Amino acid sequence: MGNHPTPVTVLGLGAMGTALAEAFVRAGHPTTVWNRTPAKAAPLIAMGATHAEAIDDAVAASPLVVTCLTTFEDTRLALEPAVASLRGRALVTLNSGSPAGARETAAWATDHGARFLAGAVKNVPSAVGAHDTLLYYSGDKTVFEEFETTLKALGGDTVHLGDETDLAALYEMAVGALLLPALVGFFQGAAAIQARGLQVSSMVRFTGKWLDMITNLLPVYAQEIDNGHYTDAASSVNLFLAGIPDDEDLGRETNVDTSWLAPLHHLVRRAAEAGHGDHSISALTEVLKRPEQPA
Amino acid sequence: MGNHPTPVTVLGLGAMGTALAEAFVRAGHPTTVWNRTPAKAAPLIAMGATHAEAIDDAVAASPLVVTCLTTFEDTRLALEPAVASLRGRALVTLNSGSPAGARETAAWATDHGARFLAGAVKNVPSAVGAHDTLLYYSGDKTVFEEFETTLKALGGDTVHLGDETDLAALYEMAVGALLLPALVGFFQGAAAIQARGLQVSSMVRFTGKWLDMITNLLPVYAQEIDNGHYTDAASSVNLFLAGIPDDEDLGRETNVDTSWLAPLHHLVRRAAEAGHGDHSISALTEVLKRPEQPA
Repeated sequence: MGNHPTPVTVLGLGAMGTALAEAFVRAGHPTTVWNRTPAKAAPLIAMGATHAEAIDDAVAASPLVVTCLTTFEDTRLALEPAVASLRGRALVTLNSGSPAGARETAAWATDHGARFLAGAVKNVPSAVGAHDTLLYYSGDKTVFEEFETTLKALGGDTVHLGDETDLAALYEMAVGALLLPALVGFFQGAAAIQARGLQVSSMVRFTGKWLDMITNLLPVYAQEIDNGHYTDAASSVNLFLAGIPDDEDLGRETNVDTSWLAPLHHLVRRAAEAGHGDHSISALTEVLKRPEQPA
Repeated sequence: MGNHPTPVTVLGLGAMGTALAEAFVRAGHPTTVWNRTPAKAAPLIAMGATHAEAIDDAVAASPLVVTCLTTFEDTRLALEPAVASLRGRALVTLNSGSPAGARETAAWATDHGARFLAGAVKNVPSAVGAHDTLLYYSGDKTVFEEFETTLKALGGDTVHLGDETDLAALYEMAVGALLLPALVGFFQGAAAIQARGLQVSSMVRFTGKWLDMITNLLPVYAQEIDNGHYTDAASSVNLFLAGIPDDEDLGRETNVDTSWLAPLHHLVRRAAEAGHGDHSISALTEVLKRPEQPA
């Protein structure tokens, strides 16, 4: 393996696809790249990658084909001219998308005789290749085991979640659900700090401490939710309820639009009304579950 | 100082106030405690604290009076019977509240001849006393300097933000603005994982990695916002825009209520419409700033 690194093909050279291809090249893998707009390949060619004009040639060049196109649908559409070459190869998708999209693409890949693994890397491109960068995969475990060493070139924390093809998409979305809300929370704070004429950079260290605190709370909340026991509350629903007027005051004082918080406040109020007032804030999980719909 | 630790009074013995009083007792400070419901003082008395029945006696017992009542208004109301004893003492508030509430309480304290410091500890009670626990204070710097060693018993990362009394409340709220949104994001993911019959604990490690990633991105975002330059985007508004249908799919598939995300998606769409599509997601800060209102 060390002497004969596995040839790899990367399809899709956006910022993330380019980072993936670079990591393979740097790890010594013969790397073939393809992109709808060929110009994007130039920096990779300069690094030693091979560019294929036709996607069919790109697929045929390697036993392992990694895609980084925008959606699962884009991936299938782009691969249509190359389906004949997919047979027997390992196809690994690394795009965002829903569990349903992953299942659909797995079925499509199987129809065309490809072995399939759906992966997710929802980090920033600059993190690709680092020893602690997390990528998870789900689907055909034999594919994962066969190419695990190669895939580790993309990030040292490489995990197989299970044989069900859509698990990576499920975890990516479940885990990723906090990104936009957390960022908008930070941006709201940033706007408030700026309104006071202060530097946003002055709140970075403090925010990092908060994120550490949240990290430390996660195992507690997860256990509460797994057990359905919310009564031993470090931070209660009522504590968050009491903070709602402060959020509104700050919005008024700093002229920052806090209206996006209204549905979050509504969830807290609904949890309190449902009898969770003295319970852990993690009881909001129960409020987020919709009643079963009639089939 | 080591041989004669400063006497301290703690008013308000909720979970956080109790943790504060415990930390002072453990650090060897003669500690007087008061609570509206005296029964709450029993465990602290067992540890060696002195209980005062009347708030006036509690205030008179120490040069440093730390309050941990629910709001600034509660604090002023509770202290009304003790105002005559406040003169010359250092009053330090450690409750949540808006900058306006902090300013109002500072003026009130000054009227009664107290020296005033408004602090914030928005960590969990179990973190009080740890060497890396952050507490920030703002207001009279001479008070901070005089009692810094004593206050450090509550957390080793003790910071004075400036002489303006409301800075601690401003930072607490600005920094804390991401807590509820981030937690609800986690709870939504937890509900999705549970809907699949999986353990929420299985996503804790992955979520921790995400929070680390966010921590690493904060200095970049802060610089973009401070400079007003959003064009060098690692994660663009359009990238988040492309992810919106996936959020909606996941909600449908797992029967989780994702309607609270609608205003966040609306912010992303508004940013794209305002020409920020290719800009960093931190450009949402600009969208959150409301136009100046007529006075």
